[in-house]
Amino acid sequence: MIRFGRGELEGLGSAFPFPAGRAFLLSSPAVLGFHGERIRAALSGRAAVEIVFEDGETAKTLETLRGVLDAALAAGIRRDDFVVAAGGGTVTDLAGFAAAILLRGIAWYALPTTLLGMADAAIGGKTAVDHPAGKNMVGAFHPPAGVLIDPDLLSTLPPRRFREGVVEIFKTLLVGSGEAARRMAGRLEGIAGSGDADEYLEEAIRVKSAVVERDPRERGERRALNFGHTLGHAIEAAGGFSRWSHGEAVAIGAAAALRLSASLCGFSPPAAGAIARELVAFAGGGPALPAWSGEIEGFLSRDKKNTAAGAVAILLAGWGQPVAREVTPAQWKEALESLRDA
Amino acid sequence: MIRFGRGELEGLGSAFPFPAGRAFLLSSPAVLGFHGERIRAALSGRAAVEIVFEDGETAKTLETLRGVLDAALAAGIRRDDFVVAAGGGTVTDLAGFAAAILLRGIAWYALPTTLLGMADAAIGGKTAVDHPAGKNMVGAFHPPAGVLIDPDLLSTLPPRRFREGVVEIFKTLLVGSGEAARRMAGRLEGIAGSGDADEYLEEAIRVKSAVVERDPRERGERRALNFGHTLGHAIEAAGGFSRWSHGEAVAIGAAAALRLSASLCGFSPPAAGAIARELVAFAGGGPALPAWSGEIEGFLSRDKKNTAAGAVAILLAGWGQPVAREVTPAQWKEALESLRDA
Repeated sequence: MIRFGRGELEGLGSAFPFPAGRAFLLSSPAVLGFHGERIRAALSGRAAVEIVFEDGETAKTLETLRGVLDAALAAGIRRDDFVVAAGGGTVTDLAGFAAAILLRGIAWYALPTTLLGMADAAIGGKTAVDHPAGKNMVGAFHPPAGVLIDPDLLSTLPPRRFREGVVEIFKTLLVGSGEAARRMAGRLEGIAGSGDADEYLEEAIRVKSAVVERDPRERGERRALNFGHTLGHAIEAAGGFSRWSHGEAVAIGAAAALRLSASLCGFSPPAAGAIARELVAFAGGGPALPAWSGEIEGFLSRDKKNTAAGAVAILLAGWGQPVAREVTPAQWKEALESLRDA
Repeated sequence: MIRFGRGELEGLGSAFPFPAGRAFLLSSPAVLGFHGERIRAALSGRAAVEIVFEDGETAKTLETLRGVLDAALAAGIRRDDFVVAAGGGTVTDLAGFAAAILLRGIAWYALPTTLLGMADAAIGGKTAVDHPAGKNMVGAFHPPAGVLIDPDLLSTLPPRRFREGVVEIFKTLLVGSGEAARRMAGRLEGIAGSGDADEYLEEAIRVKSAVVERDPRERGERRALNFGHTLGHAIEAAGGFSRWSHGEAVAIGAAAALRLSASLCGFSPPAAGAIARELVAFAGGGPALPAWSGEIEGFLSRDKKNTAAGAVAILLAGWGQPVAREVTPAQWKEALESLRDA
């Protein structure tokens, strides 16, 4: 159940048919600093317990999770209590995973406060923490019982964080809504500058919700939403989850995947080239491009989606037409390096 | 999918339609000492990776789980690999939970080596680890894709471990198969002495599989299988998971629940009294009975099944007729103390 709209936050307390128990508000110091008072007011006293933990990819660990589990159990959490996770993707990923395994699973509700979280992380129930072996290696499919998306919360978001949401929206439209992706292409900088992505965000939410409803466990169609993420996750991990933001890494991964889409899958080379250039520029330009490394190759080989049959990536046969293709490390290397000369 | 029968272990390698990847054999030093060679032979070379961890309730912790996750990820586990968990309930609980959260869930297969595991723990997908706040506080519903039950494996089981399986079988029959429970009543010592519980085990497996198939997430009917476990878990936890075995604690918990069933739910008092006496004697007799304590009361108040509405326990209105009833700590105290005078 998704509520979308500016000003929706005020109605959080009655937005969903919550369970009978207490609300456990899970969030970060930064998010509570910006929005804590309004969230508590919106929950009108139902936030009986607050558990605060650091956000950011470097804190999305089994250790942080352990602290959250300890705090929730020390507060005597019960099966009819519920979690309200307020924050960016790392907060909702970790809080959602905690909800998935506390007492073998309790209900949770997502209140994403970043554009990336609104477009992607908070929808669809993929919860997880990272592990030294890779991103999101330990987790569960545990869909939130409700997601409240209020773009007004984005007014306090730093520009770099807003930009990564723009990338994620564009990625979703590229695989699931060719017409909207065509409209958005060429306008990434303009949207980031305006701070208003509502039109594209709403379409991305529509696409993502429909896909995960048809394929909640990512057995087929949902895999398409990983477009840009195969190489992107490897770049992000190789940079220690701090050198490149998730959005920057996905922008570069998507640009490389577009190159391969043109050479392997029949995506129009001029169009693919133009989008790839726009994505690279949007991610910081040529100097931001990572050099191919054994580390990137190592993380690629440990991608969760790999099977004994090999490493399958999502490419595009055209706007809104994802296809699964086996891609070798050598092909990724060539595609990544080709972005320098673009 | 359950395979049951003496000698079934030899056919493990082809007993189920396994995924395409590698088998990760998760087990304990003790189990591999007794059965390792036969299990490896039965898997005919598919056990590519072995991860060994201590069994027993005191080792069923988040720390042990962490070690298993680290080892599996270091070995590059993939989504088409699978877990084979060989051991007692603590091994299958922990290994099943690891399978539930590795890469957001991979397939697992249970090879229970204790009577308790065969009758209960390995069936139905309730996986978990314990937490200082209580037993099974962190876990997931993640049913095994296959369970192979070969009573021949029980020949090496110490008598005390065999006895706790006898209790669990009797508990299952009491709530789900009145006729078989009547047959088993009065014969607990005889069955334990013979080392052959096959007849009752097979019926308990039938009852439990049918119940969990109808109610996998324990939203209703399945709760009945917790008969004896409300007070039993509290006794077990108060004894540091070592003073009373799970089966002994459940025997005492079931005896107390039978007393309450007679006084509150219309179960025949002479029959309830006779079974309660048999269970207490089977668990070690009067000297084994725990004294009521604040610790037991504390664990009762944190029972996972509690809601804001109160603490509901499973009692019996008759043989094979479970009912859910609110039970106060004072009532549990009285029932526990009444067992001394029996």
